[in-house]
Amino acid sequence: MKKIEHIGIAVKDLEASNALYEKLLGVAPYKEEEVVSEGVKTSFFKSGPNKIELLESTGTDGPIAKFLEKKGEGVHHIAFEVDDIVAEITRLKKEGFVVLNETPKRGADNKLVAFVHPKGTHGVLVELCQEIAEEV
Amino acid sequence: MKKIEHIGIAVKDLEASNALYEKLLGVAPYKEEEVVSEGVKTSFFKSGPNKIELLESTGTDGPIAKFLEKKGEGVHHIAFEVDDIVAEITRLKKEGFVVLNETPKRGADNKLVAFVHPKGTHGVLVELCQEIAEEV
Repeated sequence: MKKIEHIGIAVKDLEASNALYEKLLGVAPYKEEEVVSEGVKTSFFKSGPNKIELLESTGTDGPIAKFLEKKGEGVHHIAFEVDDIVAEITRLKKEGFVVLNETPKRGADNKLVAFVHPKGTHGVLVELCQEIAEEV
Repeated sequence: MKKIEHIGIAVKDLEASNALYEKLLGVAPYKEEEVVSEGVKTSFFKSGPNKIELLESTGTDGPIAKFLEKKGEGVHHIAFEVDDIVAEITRLKKEGFVVLNETPKRGADNKLVAFVHPKGTHGVLVELCQEIAEEV
């Protein structure tokens, strides 16, 4: 794992949270993106080599909607950048971690992503992400 | 804010969590440190330009003990590196954030630290940290 690529934060209202995080971080979001397959609207802020992703649910039954209902607003996941997501999934499975999607899927911000079950990581939802080099 | 300096994760058993995070991150912790004033034992892992800090409570009534009781294991705080923590505290107060300790205090890993109240940041406990250049 090369670095913390981003931290995902579940919020109720993306627009209000964008304004607040702009004040907190001292920079505006550099993009907003909807990920229809995940039922989320997202925004991204840069913080040096890292990013903060805010996530608002677009429906009432997606993963962010369920998270907000159960835990309220706050950190939803930590994403680590990897060079070879398939190799990393294989390595983690051998180490005994449960990977939620063993085939990487397309996430926000031009990434292939996979999630590691938080029950095996002391409550932290870990995302692996690999930049997509070109359109596939 | 220059980057995500580290993510703090509250755990029940530091030794067991060290073993698990070593498997997850593929590196061993580079140090362990007790912060008596905060009632915690900590360990640190490097992930490129960032760190993961695991925190175990040494008592039954410190901030990590209370967090574990209320929320269980998981992400406790996000720490951002700043060049001038006093200037950043002043800036955030002007923006309306509630800084929990307006005078920076000494934290783990040779840092001056201050915390921003999570009620003003959509549920995220934000730490500011500045490397201590020399012993003071």
